[in-house]
Amino acid sequence: MSDQEDIPPLITLITDFGTRDPYVAAMKGVIRTICPDCRIDDLSHEISPQQILEAALFIEQAVPFFPQGTIHVIVVDPGVGTARHPIAVAANGQYFICPDNGVLTLYLQPHPFDAAYMIDNPDVMLSTVSTTFHGRDIFAPAAAHLAAGIPLTSFGRRLEQLCTLNLPQATQPPDGAIHGEVIHVDRFGNCITNITRSMMPNPDTMTVCLPNGLFAKHAPAYQSIQEGRPGFLFGSSGRLEIALCEESAHMSLGIETGAHIVARPV
Amino acid sequence: MSDQEDIPPLITLITDFGTRDPYVAAMKGVIRTICPDCRIDDLSHEISPQQILEAALFIEQAVPFFPQGTIHVIVVDPGVGTARHPIAVAANGQYFICPDNGVLTLYLQPHPFDAAYMIDNPDVMLSTVSTTFHGRDIFAPAAAHLAAGIPLTSFGRRLEQLCTLNLPQATQPPDGAIHGEVIHVDRFGNCITNITRSMMPNPDTMTVCLPNGLFAKHAPAYQSIQEGRPGFLFGSSGRLEIALCEESAHMSLGIETGAHIVARPV
Amino acid sequence: MSDQEDIPPLITLITDFGTRDPYVAAMKGVIRTICPDCRIDDLSHEISPQQILEAALFIEQAVPFFPQGTIHVIVVDPGVGTARHPIAVAANGQYFICPDNGVLTLYLQPHPFDAAYMIDNPDVMLSTVSTTFHGRDIFAPAAAHLAAGIPLTSFGRRLEQLCTLNLPQATQPPDGAIHGEVIHVDRFGNCITNITRSMMPNPDTMTVCLPNGLFAKHAPAYQSIQEGRPGFLFGSSGRLEIALCEESAHMSLGIETGAHIVARPV
Repeated sequence: MSDQEDIPPLITLITDFGTRDPYVAAMKGVIRTICPDCRIDDLSHEISPQQILEAALFIEQAVPFFPQGTIHVIVVDPGVGTARHPIAVAANGQYFICPDNGVLTLYLQPHPFDAAYMIDNPDVMLSTVSTTFHGRDIFAPAAAHLAAGIPLTSFGRRLEQLCTLNLPQATQPPDGAIHGEVIHVDRFGNCITNITRSMMPNPDTMTVCLPNGLFAKHAPAYQSIQEGRPGFLFGSSGRLEIALCEESAHMSLGIETGAHIVARPV
Repeated sequence: MSDQEDIPPLITLITDFGTRDPYVAAMKGVIRTICPDCRIDDLSHEISPQQILEAALFIEQAVPFFPQGTIHVIVVDPGVGTARHPIAVAANGQYFICPDNGVLTLYLQPHPFDAAYMIDNPDVMLSTVSTTFHGRDIFAPAAAHLAAGIPLTSFGRRLEQLCTLNLPQATQPPDGAIHGEVIHVDRFGNCITNITRSMMPNPDTMTVCLPNGLFAKHAPAYQSIQEGRPGFLFGSSGRLEIALCEESAHMSLGIETGAHIVARPV
Repeated sequence: MSDQEDIPPLITLITDFGTRDPYVAAMKGVIRTICPDCRIDDLSHEISPQQILEAALFIEQAVPFFPQGTIHVIVVDPGVGTARHPIAVAANGQYFICPDNGVLTLYLQPHPFDAAYMIDNPDVMLSTVSTTFHGRDIFAPAAAHLAAGIPLTSFGRRLEQLCTLNLPQATQPPDGAIHGEVIHVDRFGNCITNITRSMMPNPDTMTVCLPNGLFAKHAPAYQSIQEGRPGFLFGSSGRLEIALCEESAHMSLGIETGAHIVARPV
């Protein structure tokens, strides 16, 4: 094959645009025009519209698996056309081109950013910038120019601080309980909470009380959950998930994002 | 990197197939077999089934951003298996492989085609052509053969005329009003009309009457729309859109495709 | 362009993960890290959750169009974390990396496998393997290592037999009838059955009785079906499909997966 040096740059796309509308397509055209030899990987266009926390969780779980030097374009941008800045960020060998709206909060917690710049150099944007579609006019061209070799330092003013999201935090009162909440429901109906593995070193000694009065026991895998009874496990996210065996916990148990749960020692 | 000459050909796909069924996958396999080194960009497989106008709007807005020489395969084809022709078209440096059903109408309005051919040379199709899946049997292989260097002139008989869509036209009676209609609702619930920017040089002096009796004022960006009140702006499509701030105008105001709207001087 | 030898390896992805969650994205990151120069084609992430038969039909119809040497990663895996094996299979010039749960049954019927291996060599997996996400921890890295040149023989123990799905079989009693059932409904509402073309050499002499008492006649193409009346044809799947002209047979006739149908000589 080829040496690492010959591998063309990799740009990934994470948006809430869906693909029925032409928004993602226009971004790809812009990238292909500015940096014809790059590779483009669709990561998601199905982030729920304008849900920054959902995008932040996505980034936290997907980005660590990408090779050094990958450029991630994230367009979940309810503030398009307002004063929020477009930014270019380097952290832990990955690059991010996105609005400064907190979408990087979870990824940056264990990997503080090495450098962050406002994107305000018109040379890395399209020549006309609309007020409605910065994905096409700013984020896609900035990513393509970065891929084509323009250094981050020329993107704009250096930033010392970025916006952060206020996330609901799990709490651990002295009685040994852990109070958390559901922050995401995945396609299989698994209900992912804000309780992380490090908060619960011995999950087999804990039981989780659900809002409907049911209890969930720890299981090592989805298939080890007893049929028809809720279980909990630490999924690929490293967070506590409520699940059912071959059923949707969300649908069958009526657990929604925001639901309060309590883990207690047995 | 590499010279422009070394960049492999780029084929884009625009279909109404979705991706739950194997239709898009089979097309990709055909392309990879005939032109192994091309790049394939998914633009959309979520065009609403058999909605030619929706595809025409998509093409109008996405294709202009692609580099010269891009080959666009469009399969929104309610007439598969009937007398409608498969065509290969060159216009403004872009190539199109699609059914002759009007899907290029909007793109070709400002960029009349340079050459158009019926696809009837069996050498650019699969050896067996079904009556149900020309995406796989005709359009994908024709695009891949074009990418691999077969000239358009050998695809079939030259055509002087293509089918066109009859689009609802906005009208401008002498009283200064503009009568238009909603032609597309996007993922965010923005309602896109057939009124173009050039019809309304001074949007700040106009107000738009909606079917439910509400009025919309001009806003420069989605976020500048007053909360809870409809606004209008010229979005990335260059067309007048009815929108709400961080809400779906479609859902909250009940505006559907086909809804009549009237812009009047204040 | 380039010689076949210089074309980078091709990996395709078929999953039931959707793309709202970060599962597919993490798999792409793993592949890009292990085999940076490979090409990745998304075939589907919209297989219905945990529906092995749907995936088997997809593979049967899409894979035959791919070039020799393509590596297909299939993750429809209700048994993740249980004793079912991850496998690597070579058949008819194609490679498959997937759980041993029958998902290859239909593809392998006409193309018996040339070699099959359990994947149990930790060198072709991520260094930590979870019990919940083998797509990321086993299947994606195994495919990338295969693409990067590790031979199948070093993946693990050779297998002589694979799991197979029990599919509903169409039957042909001596009266000339064919009894079948609907096994898949596609995006257009066409109802695809388990009756294959070879069972019905003369479709024009047959009529198909539907569960609702209606009858369907043979049509050569969707558009040749009489408006408002059901028709049947042999679609791109090579299987008998019940369809309506520009309508969904599934929605308009209420035909579901599992519905019994009978074809009889006229």
